[in-house]
Amino acid sequence: MLFHVRMTVNLPHDMPETARVDILAREKAYAQDLQRAGTWRALWRVVGKYENISIFDVESPAHLHDILSALPLFPYMEITVEALCTHPSALEHD
Amino acid sequence: MLFHVRMTVNLPHDMPETARVDILAREKAYAQDLQRAGTWRALWRVVGKYENISIFDVESPAHLHDILSALPLFPYMEITVEALCTHPSALEHD
Amino acid sequence: MLFHVRMTVNLPHDMPETARVDILAREKAYAQDLQRAGTWRALWRVVGKYENISIFDVESPAHLHDILSALPLFPYMEITVEALCTHPSALEHD
Amino acid sequence: MLFHVRMTVNLPHDMPETARVDILAREKAYAQDLQRAGTWRALWRVVGKYENISIFDVESPAHLHDILSALPLFPYMEITVEALCTHPSALEHD
Amino acid sequence: MLFHVRMTVNLPHDMPETARVDILAREKAYAQDLQRAGTWRALWRVVGKYENISIFDVESPAHLHDILSALPLFPYMEITVEALCTHPSALEHD
Amino acid sequence: MLFHVRMTVNLPHDMPETARVDILAREKAYAQDLQRAGTWRALWRVVGKYENISIFDVESPAHLHDILSALPLFPYMEITVEALCTHPSALEHD
Amino acid sequence: MLFHVRMTVNLPHDMPETARVDILAREKAYAQDLQRAGTWRALWRVVGKYENISIFDVESPAHLHDILSALPLFPYMEITVEALCTHPSALEHD
Amino acid sequence: MLFHVRMTVNLPHDMPETARVDILAREKAYAQDLQRAGTWRALWRVVGKYENISIFDVESPAHLHDILSALPLFPYMEITVEALCTHPSALEHD
Amino acid sequence: MLFHVRMTVNLPHDMPETARVDILAREKAYAQDLQRAGTWRALWRVVGKYENISIFDVESPAHLHDILSALPLFPYMEITVEALCTHPSALEHD
Amino acid sequence: MLFHVRMTVNLPHDMPETARVDILAREKAYAQDLQRAGTWRALWRVVGKYENISIFDVESPAHLHDILSALPLFPYMEITVEALCTHPSALEHD
Repeated sequence: MLFHVRMTVNLPHDMPETARVDILAREKAYAQDLQRAGTWRALWRVVGKYENISIFDVESPAHLHDILSALPLFPYMEITVEALCTHPSALEHD
Repeated sequence: MLFHVRMTVNLPHDMPETARVDILAREKAYAQDLQRAGTWRALWRVVGKYENISIFDVESPAHLHDILSALPLFPYMEITVEALCTHPSALEHD
Repeated sequence: MLFHVRMTVNLPHDMPETARVDILAREKAYAQDLQRAGTWRALWRVVGKYENISIFDVESPAHLHDILSALPLFPYMEITVEALCTHPSALEHD
Repeated sequence: MLFHVRMTVNLPHDMPETARVDILAREKAYAQDLQRAGTWRALWRVVGKYENISIFDVESPAHLHDILSALPLFPYMEITVEALCTHPSALEHD
Repeated sequence: MLFHVRMTVNLPHDMPETARVDILAREKAYAQDLQRAGTWRALWRVVGKYENISIFDVESPAHLHDILSALPLFPYMEITVEALCTHPSALEHD
Repeated sequence: MLFHVRMTVNLPHDMPETARVDILAREKAYAQDLQRAGTWRALWRVVGKYENISIFDVESPAHLHDILSALPLFPYMEITVEALCTHPSALEHD
Repeated sequence: MLFHVRMTVNLPHDMPETARVDILAREKAYAQDLQRAGTWRALWRVVGKYENISIFDVESPAHLHDILSALPLFPYMEITVEALCTHPSALEHD
Repeated sequence: MLFHVRMTVNLPHDMPETARVDILAREKAYAQDLQRAGTWRALWRVVGKYENISIFDVESPAHLHDILSALPLFPYMEITVEALCTHPSALEHD
Repeated sequence: MLFHVRMTVNLPHDMPETARVDILAREKAYAQDLQRAGTWRALWRVVGKYENISIFDVESPAHLHDILSALPLFPYMEITVEALCTHPSALEHD
Repeated sequence: MLFHVRMTVNLPHDMPETARVDILAREKAYAQDLQRAGTWRALWRVVGKYENISIFDVESPAHLHDILSALPLFPYMEITVEALCTHPSALEHD
């Protein structure tokens, strides 16, 4: 099942550079693993912002929460989740 | 180039049923033509709402506006547009 | 899976009384069928408002949308949906 | 009487880990005691957020305030309270 | 128990004058009965607005909802309810 | 003349305990003096929040500002003020 | 005592021209009478809007409400009121 | 030309008292100079807030920005500016 | 002097087609006259909306209000105005 | 293609003066290079705010994001982006 997720990142200005580099590297590895697994189906940057819009394909809401709350950046993000379903005018049922 | 578009539909309660059926049929045909052309890349219903979230792949902002303003439901929708770009953690560049 | 749903009703002031009585009766019958089926798990009135807060237990987001969009009052409601999951401090997993 | 409560947690990023572990343990014990007593009737995590939605069954608004303001996390939460009552379409009066 | 209630009135501009006079007379009679009964403890007009702020002393949230939803103006008002309790610095417990 | 005042308190998490105890004691003494004088006519806690709703009976807006800006907690509060007057349906003119 | 008042006018598009001309003439006469009396101390148009910002010098909040609720355009306006007092840096006490 | 300006002050709680006294003294001197020059035409305190509402009479928008951005408190204020013009019902053209 | 103006158009769905064609033709002629005069310096459509963003170069705020309030679509638009000035990093002073 | 960009700057009050001078100098140099290149087509200060409104002429949304995210002040700004296109009443197609 699909969920639309928006994540806005707010890293503290005084985070040490090494901590910052480390957390971003872990975030990237984690995000790419989930993309390879087909769970994190789409990931776009919103132009001009430190924010992404993503589509997740998960087994349940609980599955989605487990994924999101395990993101290294989770404590530094504002996240909004919207449940999606097939649109009656969509050509193919996703 | 990709744009994230959210469309919320507000049809007047007193729209005659035939007008309603007609405009929805034209909207659907139009939406499916654009999907077949690869322009309307994704189209999801937001659960519980008369609202969709879409991804458009267009040649320019002007191209997107021409498409959106020609939607039969355009006069009855609130639309928000956000420009997207490749996320640095995305596996493949879209 | 559980979803938290808030429905705010806005019936037009000029809806004929017979139409109003009819739509409310159909809404009630529909709501009670879903409660009997265990799908509409909880239904409360928000004090002072023509608004309810509900918990749905459904098979998927699509299932929830099918239910909500078939509500007789659907065209007259503003609905917000939030996905829920088990809280780590909850005594029993729901 | 029932109240719908939403709690959003905002722990400071610089809270020492031991303080954090301690406060969360106390919060959990407190929440589970109230659940066992039947006062904290339902407790769900909102997917993607450090936020819960709860249903409390209390003797009075003052009783609810005493409970909420004694939460170990109270100084770190934004809380909204809504009074609930029986919905005319609810199958059984709660 | 006390509740703080704010009511904002939105009468349609095209309501016939006789209907308007009638509904306001019924609202006033109803409001004064509840004041005499000690239930509607305080009733103030917000300066510059067709809006009141009220304090109700009721037996339960359900009692409050019964009162508010029976207001003749209920279909034309936006109402917000907040539960109150004794403030620790209040001289006398209300 | 009456004013409706809402005060939301935001004490810094790192305020030393002694400073906190002291400021709250001074706030309480000040609030109780004003209540005894009949100026601070009503003071309620909003359930679930570090917030109060108050009714002040003052000689002028300037009088109200002098009182509010002298509150020990003034630098830590967000305050909103609304002017009240007699409601035409109120039983007794306040 | 001084109050800052913002009035936003929303005349229905289908108001007959004669009714419109009449109500605006009455509003203007009323506004000018109050200006001559020194009660409506300042009246400005907000550029680009059908909205004014005004300063009233009245005897009490009740006096202000009587004036505002008697405005011919009152049923068609959204009004916000803020109480003012002397600023400590103001050259002369107003 | 006239502009309506609202300034909300947010001084950091940890600003040293000497710095605070100094900046406020400089702000006051600056504000009074501009009042004497007829540029800062009106200055009121909003009751209950650390906020003022002001009317400036300047030569141009650039002139207004030069004045506002030179305020000692400028880095600590949220400022909103609205352009004003003569209201058609105003007795005298300002 | 320059002002940034955003205009959002809300034409009633039941406006007769001839009235609609007429008002849009008059709006266009008026807008083009002002562009030729150098007053309406820039005019862009916001993608996906019935909304424009414009830059006006006028003699005064009153001049701008005269122009905007004379727009044929003025009764059907929500307009916001922001005063602009030269940015210190701008290459040439506009 | 054109984009409308609004940037609001929030520099921390405790940023050392040398760091502040340095970042502002780099921001200015960067902004002027982009203006000389014709990419940053317009740059205005919003009166009374530490905020600018800009028009960018870029090759793609990705191009715009590269430019914005490379701004020295990017970590300290809130940025909103709106896609623009030619308005049907614009004299010349931009």
